[in-house]
Amino acid sequence: MTEQVKVGIIMGSQSDWPTMQEAAQMLDELGVAHEVKIVSAHRTPDRLWTYGKEAAGRGLQVIIAGAGGAAHLPGMMASKTRVPVIGVPVQTKALSGVDSLYSILQMPRGFPVATMAIGAAGAANAGLMAAGILALQDPALAERLDAWRQALSDSIPDEPLRD
Amino acid sequence: MTEQVKVGIIMGSQSDWPTMQEAAQMLDELGVAHEVKIVSAHRTPDRLWTYGKEAAGRGLQVIIAGAGGAAHLPGMMASKTRVPVIGVPVQTKALSGVDSLYSILQMPRGFPVATMAIGAAGAANAGLMAAGILALQDPALAERLDAWRQALSDSIPDEPLRD
Amino acid sequence: MTEQVKVGIIMGSQSDWPTMQEAAQMLDELGVAHEVKIVSAHRTPDRLWTYGKEAAGRGLQVIIAGAGGAAHLPGMMASKTRVPVIGVPVQTKALSGVDSLYSILQMPRGFPVATMAIGAAGAANAGLMAAGILALQDPALAERLDAWRQALSDSIPDEPLRD
Amino acid sequence: MTEQVKVGIIMGSQSDWPTMQEAAQMLDELGVAHEVKIVSAHRTPDRLWTYGKEAAGRGLQVIIAGAGGAAHLPGMMASKTRVPVIGVPVQTKALSGVDSLYSILQMPRGFPVATMAIGAAGAANAGLMAAGILALQDPALAERLDAWRQALSDSIPDEPLRD
Amino acid sequence: MTEQVKVGIIMGSQSDWPTMQEAAQMLDELGVAHEVKIVSAHRTPDRLWTYGKEAAGRGLQVIIAGAGGAAHLPGMMASKTRVPVIGVPVQTKALSGVDSLYSILQMPRGFPVATMAIGAAGAANAGLMAAGILALQDPALAERLDAWRQALSDSIPDEPLRD
Amino acid sequence: MTEQVKVGIIMGSQSDWPTMQEAAQMLDELGVAHEVKIVSAHRTPDRLWTYGKEAAGRGLQVIIAGAGGAAHLPGMMASKTRVPVIGVPVQTKALSGVDSLYSILQMPRGFPVATMAIGAAGAANAGLMAAGILALQDPALAERLDAWRQALSDSIPDEPLRD
Amino acid sequence: MTEQVKVGIIMGSQSDWPTMQEAAQMLDELGVAHEVKIVSAHRTPDRLWTYGKEAAGRGLQVIIAGAGGAAHLPGMMASKTRVPVIGVPVQTKALSGVDSLYSILQMPRGFPVATMAIGAAGAANAGLMAAGILALQDPALAERLDAWRQALSDSIPDEPLRD
Amino acid sequence: MTEQVKVGIIMGSQSDWPTMQEAAQMLDELGVAHEVKIVSAHRTPDRLWTYGKEAAGRGLQVIIAGAGGAAHLPGMMASKTRVPVIGVPVQTKALSGVDSLYSILQMPRGFPVATMAIGAAGAANAGLMAAGILALQDPALAERLDAWRQALSDSIPDEPLRD
Repeated sequence: MTEQVKVGIIMGSQSDWPTMQEAAQMLDELGVAHEVKIVSAHRTPDRLWTYGKEAAGRGLQVIIAGAGGAAHLPGMMASKTRVPVIGVPVQTKALSGVDSLYSILQMPRGFPVATMAIGAAGAANAGLMAAGILALQDPALAERLDAWRQALSDSIPDEPLRD
Repeated sequence: MTEQVKVGIIMGSQSDWPTMQEAAQMLDELGVAHEVKIVSAHRTPDRLWTYGKEAAGRGLQVIIAGAGGAAHLPGMMASKTRVPVIGVPVQTKALSGVDSLYSILQMPRGFPVATMAIGAAGAANAGLMAAGILALQDPALAERLDAWRQALSDSIPDEPLRD
Repeated sequence: MTEQVKVGIIMGSQSDWPTMQEAAQMLDELGVAHEVKIVSAHRTPDRLWTYGKEAAGRGLQVIIAGAGGAAHLPGMMASKTRVPVIGVPVQTKALSGVDSLYSILQMPRGFPVATMAIGAAGAANAGLMAAGILALQDPALAERLDAWRQALSDSIPDEPLRD
Repeated sequence: MTEQVKVGIIMGSQSDWPTMQEAAQMLDELGVAHEVKIVSAHRTPDRLWTYGKEAAGRGLQVIIAGAGGAAHLPGMMASKTRVPVIGVPVQTKALSGVDSLYSILQMPRGFPVATMAIGAAGAANAGLMAAGILALQDPALAERLDAWRQALSDSIPDEPLRD
Repeated sequence: MTEQVKVGIIMGSQSDWPTMQEAAQMLDELGVAHEVKIVSAHRTPDRLWTYGKEAAGRGLQVIIAGAGGAAHLPGMMASKTRVPVIGVPVQTKALSGVDSLYSILQMPRGFPVATMAIGAAGAANAGLMAAGILALQDPALAERLDAWRQALSDSIPDEPLRD
Repeated sequence: MTEQVKVGIIMGSQSDWPTMQEAAQMLDELGVAHEVKIVSAHRTPDRLWTYGKEAAGRGLQVIIAGAGGAAHLPGMMASKTRVPVIGVPVQTKALSGVDSLYSILQMPRGFPVATMAIGAAGAANAGLMAAGILALQDPALAERLDAWRQALSDSIPDEPLRD
Repeated sequence: MTEQVKVGIIMGSQSDWPTMQEAAQMLDELGVAHEVKIVSAHRTPDRLWTYGKEAAGRGLQVIIAGAGGAAHLPGMMASKTRVPVIGVPVQTKALSGVDSLYSILQMPRGFPVATMAIGAAGAANAGLMAAGILALQDPALAERLDAWRQALSDSIPDEPLRD
Repeated sequence: MTEQVKVGIIMGSQSDWPTMQEAAQMLDELGVAHEVKIVSAHRTPDRLWTYGKEAAGRGLQVIIAGAGGAAHLPGMMASKTRVPVIGVPVQTKALSGVDSLYSILQMPRGFPVATMAIGAAGAANAGLMAAGILALQDPALAERLDAWRQALSDSIPDEPLRD
């Protein structure tokens, strides 16, 4: 991908990938160049530091961060860069992702994280939200996004299939 | 305000204003032109329809929508426009805003709402998130945002004041 | 079905059908003419608008609306028509339908949604509630409903079957 | 009130009245004849029995039942009569009405209770839902209800009052 | 069983039996005569009425009532008889038995229900609690209960088995 | 009080007294001899041990134990004596008594605690439950309990007082 | 193991072992001598008493206690010894371990329990926390702990594996 | 204070001080030298980094970290140092500190935070836990801690004061 990467998808661990791949697929579908990285707030804090510090300079325009449990990645990234951060709460075993949600959502004044729904739908929507932000400066992407939305609407049948 | 309005702050009712004014104040502080409207999903659905349909054409780049309880406004707005929608769950009496939160957050694939923390901190952060999105195209605003963030960091004393 | 359709069963997507078919079956069992449609608040908002605006004129007397997650369909429909709306919260993966419940239940003053239990029992009960409303004007249906209730009571054995 | 009483508002105790009076006021506003009674599922079970058995014969068309805590009144009433029962979960001290809500909402297949939002808004909406049901047979009431809804919509200002 | 039945185990439906059989087994183990009945608060309210009215006269000393969801059976039984009622919240699909718990537990002043843990452990403990109450008048049962408790304690190994 | 004490009311700390006095008042009202003690599971574990070991021998027939937060008192007491233990979850500041409730309710197989509603109503009901247990052997108390219950029912007016 | 045992891992029952073995494995990995015992707060309260009283004298420096449901073990142990107690909430069937968590966490002033995350991750972390405490006096262990942490960080790949 | 500081109390903001001062007071009472700092995970991340990196070298033996809402401070500190971190969830307005709790507690394998009860009792207990850890190497402190615990036990009266 020689195109300028505009969206960084980061996640705390390999186990977040089945959820976060939905964001990557959505960006692929909409033709948005992106990168996918593992950045763990706790295990690789220096990687987080560096990623955050370099984000704006590298031309990243949106960061999508997925995490589960204590889920500090999205909020810590929001503390390190002014680039908009979209947070995806990954579903967890004991608390169903409510832990992830509260950790990502309840940021103090000063450091917003644009929180999406828990799990796969939230990850896909993170891709769409990123595209919507980029589309503000990219009329072609705006058109592709409009078309995607129209196709989604058009795909809805009038009645449910009764098997 | 003769400047092009880039951010629309909308809310379901007058009772949301004490929360949502934090968003307006933040945008004022950062020098971002905005408008403030009451748009009720249930009481003025046609107003919602019109607002959503005209948003992109009018040059709105971000919509901040606050609502409490069933809180359908942010999600319905996201259904009517590709302009990014930031949702603010207003705290409620019986359920403390968890009802507002779930209604705003748990959007289906296709219609993201960038959800903020419950209540006033979330509203202020909605303003910051909007500024962060606009700053992608506005270097002067990016600088003001950086300065705001730096000032916030600089304001933190080394030790708590013990009275 | 040439009989006047009195009940409209609507749902946000195909995935709601396994739940909502319980409402349709109950109405079948009680001999109540009904239609079944997919109306998505977010993906087909104009369909929702039209459905709501025409409901009373078309002779619909009850609308049963099922939805999951942000679940805006029942409440938005209640905003568009004075025809009584019964809401069925569909169970969800991460939040077990508590998200659906709060979004459907916590409507503001002005727009009631008659909320049923989460999931299949709630959908069946939506059919019964619709029948109970129609029975107010239809003595034959009232009798069938009484008989259904009596049969349910009569079916309860005195002791549990111990295997 | 010599008019035929069509709606019965019942509640478990005096302490529910501050909430349930909202239902009575709404029915007054819409010109719907109603009665208001204390019927306690636990303290006056025989009263509940009698009320339920006689409801249909007395010409009641809707029963609005408010209760808090274990809140068995709405569900037990639904077991005793086919007249539609609307349940209002009264807010409680320790559990904010979530206890009331679950007890009213989670009825088993066979006995629906049309559950409203927790607290005063739910009580007002119970009045509106009752009116909506009665309006199916009463064009004049339908008109009054439409007018009430229109007036509500018309009362929404374009912008919040900033003090 | 020609012995005087001292404990009545009742439940709302066949589906509660897999849980409630734990109570019956415990009473069998402790040699306490009991009966097992289906009594549904909503489907057979008259059966509930009769059971409650006759309980004391028939010599019942404890009633164990299991129910799920709205779970009105234990509380309504407590309203109909002064015989102590032990309630067992049956686990449910969407709300894991928290609905059952709140409906059983949150009884108003005047009508206590001795609530046990959610599910099978709670049902077994209901049997033990019933035995403990009966043992106050039955020294032989008190001895058997002491022996049961001692055996439980003695069965605990010093270390877990590591496989 | 020279009468044999049959009920022990214990609580973890002075701060539980405003709640637990409702149990004492109820027993006073019903003429049941009782004692009131502070027994802290954590601060006075030896007191708990002794109290539990001596309970049956001292002729105690019911122990009412109130506690808040981690609330180990009722369950630990149930581990030390076969005398029936009634638990009262005291309301707490952060978690509204849900912490107290879960700690008291969710006892493992072998050690039931008869859990009452959270707070003052639960404490009053603990007194009533104790009386109901004692009434099994005390016809005069049974009569007083019946009279108390009848008086409660008789006190319920037909309609709420509208101020 | 002839080395002085410094850490005691205790749990309420065999069923806690699949969770608690993670603590044992972690201590094995870090070379920390430990013992593993079943100590049930309710079934073997005297064992708990003895274990607590002897802990300091036997040279135990940390106690790791796992329990589920009412989960009194960690808190009761904290009441019996000044040796630091780490609590692990075991996941439960109906309440997912939130019951275990609240019972372990919400200790009153005076008796802290160092609570870990619900389930297996929490048990592993209990081992790490114990090691961290011991490392304060054991430079070789501190080095092993640093190495373990470094290895964990080094094991994180730059990108997720996409299958 | 010329004594070597062994405990660092850190918190995210001035607003945490009313809670966290309980930890400081407890350490004062027990004669444990400590420092008190504001270290905000989001507003002063570099301060957090430095504090964490230098903690072990400066001779800190325990870090007590209080935070509310997203509450990333304790977990991020645990990621930066092997010095044991005790976390105190500060109570919050909308979610009562459950947000703080989940963010602090649900740490992934590798980075334990010793979580205390929500609010002031948790902060006081953090001081006691820190003292308990230091007492492992400090017999005089162990004695003071034993005395403190004994005094607490001795202070519990036999009966509640009835006003």
